[in-house]
Amino acid sequence: MTRDTLHGADEIGVGLMGLGVVGGGVAATLLDPAQHVARTVGRPVSLKRVLVRQPDKERQMGVPPGILTADPTLLLNDPSIQVVVEVIGGEEPASSYIRQSLSRGKSVVTANKEVMAKEGQELLTLAAARGVDLLFEASVGGGIPIVGPLMKDLLANDIRSIQAIINGTTNYMLTRMARDGMDFDEALKEAQGLGFAEADPANDVEGIDAGYKLAVLASLAFHTQVRAEDVHREGISGLRARDFRYAHELGYAIKLLAIARREGGQVQARVHPCFVPQEHMLAKVDGVFNAVEVEGDLTGKILFHGRGAGREPTTSAIIGDLVEVAKKLGAGGGPAPFFPPGNSLTVAPMSELVTRYYIRLGAADRPGVLAQIARVLGDQDVSIASVIQKDSNPGSQTAELVVTTHPAREKAVQESLQRMRGLQVVRQVDNLVRVEDWPSD
Amino acid sequence: MTRDTLHGADEIGVGLMGLGVVGGGVAATLLDPAQHVARTVGRPVSLKRVLVRQPDKERQMGVPPGILTADPTLLLNDPSIQVVVEVIGGEEPASSYIRQSLSRGKSVVTANKEVMAKEGQELLTLAAARGVDLLFEASVGGGIPIVGPLMKDLLANDIRSIQAIINGTTNYMLTRMARDGMDFDEALKEAQGLGFAEADPANDVEGIDAGYKLAVLASLAFHTQVRAEDVHREGISGLRARDFRYAHELGYAIKLLAIARREGGQVQARVHPCFVPQEHMLAKVDGVFNAVEVEGDLTGKILFHGRGAGREPTTSAIIGDLVEVAKKLGAGGGPAPFFPPGNSLTVAPMSELVTRYYIRLGAADRPGVLAQIARVLGDQDVSIASVIQKDSNPGSQTAELVVTTHPAREKAVQESLQRMRGLQVVRQVDNLVRVEDWPSD
Repeated sequence: MTRDTLHGADEIGVGLMGLGVVGGGVAATLLDPAQHVARTVGRPVSLKRVLVRQPDKERQMGVPPGILTADPTLLLNDPSIQVVVEVIGGEEPASSYIRQSLSRGKSVVTANKEVMAKEGQELLTLAAARGVDLLFEASVGGGIPIVGPLMKDLLANDIRSIQAIINGTTNYMLTRMARDGMDFDEALKEAQGLGFAEADPANDVEGIDAGYKLAVLASLAFHTQVRAEDVHREGISGLRARDFRYAHELGYAIKLLAIARREGGQVQARVHPCFVPQEHMLAKVDGVFNAVEVEGDLTGKILFHGRGAGREPTTSAIIGDLVEVAKKLGAGGGPAPFFPPGNSLTVAPMSELVTRYYIRLGAADRPGVLAQIARVLGDQDVSIASVIQKDSNPGSQTAELVVTTHPAREKAVQESLQRMRGLQVVRQVDNLVRVEDWPSD
Repeated sequence: MTRDTLHGADEIGVGLMGLGVVGGGVAATLLDPAQHVARTVGRPVSLKRVLVRQPDKERQMGVPPGILTADPTLLLNDPSIQVVVEVIGGEEPASSYIRQSLSRGKSVVTANKEVMAKEGQELLTLAAARGVDLLFEASVGGGIPIVGPLMKDLLANDIRSIQAIINGTTNYMLTRMARDGMDFDEALKEAQGLGFAEADPANDVEGIDAGYKLAVLASLAFHTQVRAEDVHREGISGLRARDFRYAHELGYAIKLLAIARREGGQVQARVHPCFVPQEHMLAKVDGVFNAVEVEGDLTGKILFHGRGAGREPTTSAIIGDLVEVAKKLGAGGGPAPFFPPGNSLTVAPMSELVTRYYIRLGAADRPGVLAQIARVLGDQDVSIASVIQKDSNPGSQTAELVVTTHPAREKAVQESLQRMRGLQVVRQVDNLVRVEDWPSD
């Protein structure tokens, strides 16, 4: 395909919303004189307009200043723009811009996990009604292809579960805490210094970001609507250096997992720290890497592993989607926009979860204490798998106890913890972490 | 989508060639009364004919005997068959049937790595000329989506390299040899007993199967033609239990890797046993699992891990492709068939490879021997990284030496081995294994 051939063919016009780290990468790719995208699509792909907050700001990106604008209507009303790439992030105004673009018959490529987690179903419905595409590979897992495989390659499967490490910031912190004995504050400060964590880290460390991404993946995998607010979320700030030591002794790593599992007509969707067996692939995902494990009824477990964030990987995902849309536009049509067939699954309440648990607590260091604790658990039908006494402190006459349970119901475990806290011999319950002991497949 | 809606829409007719393990899985999926495929496609997908060698043979598969035939023309000449699924395997007659199907304007979905490795370029050219699709996700990696991601999701990348474990039989054997100290014959016998290896195991243990798959992946990744015969192949039969022990001591696992790497206008393509650092993800791929690591300029390294063979995973890949073709047929068209843009890369000769090496040899157990060996290597500019003397045998006055080198040129190393064999103090050179020390990314 020569440049001349490209120039003869009808052009695909692109409007870009947002020119931050990722937007800059997308712009650079589209403005690259080697025209990699155009050659792949088979016709010119032209960056028509870029929406920014301050069009007059000095930029070193090679974007012609004349196409910068602060006025979204210049993109929305431009009939030569057939595809809008949204990389503003956050819910508003991104959501309104996506909606307006689709309404005006433009296809949209977005990296916006928050919008897709909160309004994905409505926006996909709108896109299908207008006969345009809404693609969002970049919203989860950076450059790792995961939305595409769930939408296409794995369609023959009934997906049973997803287990994922989809927040690189917290995985970096957990890796440092596990390997180097750092505590939470120290790991956070380092992550902030390296630019992995924001000044306000809540979005990452409280599992909000991972929750958005899980809502997107679960909706795709189960062909149903799992919204951001349906996901049970717990962050990593309660973990202490000693939890990592004990986990290691018991044969586990601690990871912030995003888990979605189908059980009949119900879906579990939860983000929380988890004990993961050391020999499991997810236990070996370190640093800022992400990994998504999908279990299909035909394929069994498939793991996708790679860089989950950053300018280049996210640009890769966006350009992949853009090429797909542009090829379809170039062909004058193609298969209908993706629309998840309507399973109507309900989200299972967290209290109904059955899994194993790790409980760390401080108790009086004297005979009979363990019997009392065991009785409280036994009264709720929670069966103890192991008890280890740690760090006996003769001065205060306290000891640290680490209890692991056999599979038990969340509700019963939470009720047991309440009662334990009422025991005179229990000083405090320090931590509860769920233990995921999957069969090794 | 109700059955009534489905019945109103135009039907997609499918012809199936082959009714073995995988063919049976495909037939069962298409004949499933729940019509999962039809509902996903949005119109009826009907199995019209099945090509088998013995139509009269008793089968317990629920395929209506009336659609079985031994006559390929009944599929090739049937205008109601728009898609042919080829799961016969082997080169002929599968290759001719694929060619004839494409020539007659039928799209083809195939699991045939041998045909794609030997004639992929010609067949894709033919498909593009006829405006039909030739899809082959099932030819590599079973149910792991890897062809699709290379063809679509990762298109924005210049792919730098592929490192893969793509033969489950040999990976199972290597896992047993490493973990349980089995030797090659014992591991092979077990793999045969479990049905993982054929009675004639050459296809697996000599790296032929992995070579076909690597040719397919490399052609896709680098948009060029890498043929089966371009791939340098070495099998695993030369490995001994002691090689696994020494590898372990040195911090490595031994894996049969398929490696393709682009360097400027050249491509390396090779299948051989490799020392892989124990902390690398590929070292952790055990048993019959497969894994493909792709390095893109934007994404960095992405790993795809899962079951690389078997009825269900392979069926998943075929049905995924079939749904894609059927959706496009249903929409009356779509983007042009995939056709790799024409890079014309040459395959680098193996002699030019630069990597590290592990050499195991038997030598006389007396002073000065090491100096002679070091001189032979030094004369060829091969620099020694470590030497360990093992298993000194006072009776025969021999010792086993394990030498590892710094990066060196294959040609120089092979020349050194020749000269070493000529030394009086060298009893024999037992093994040469390449060492892949990638940066940890």
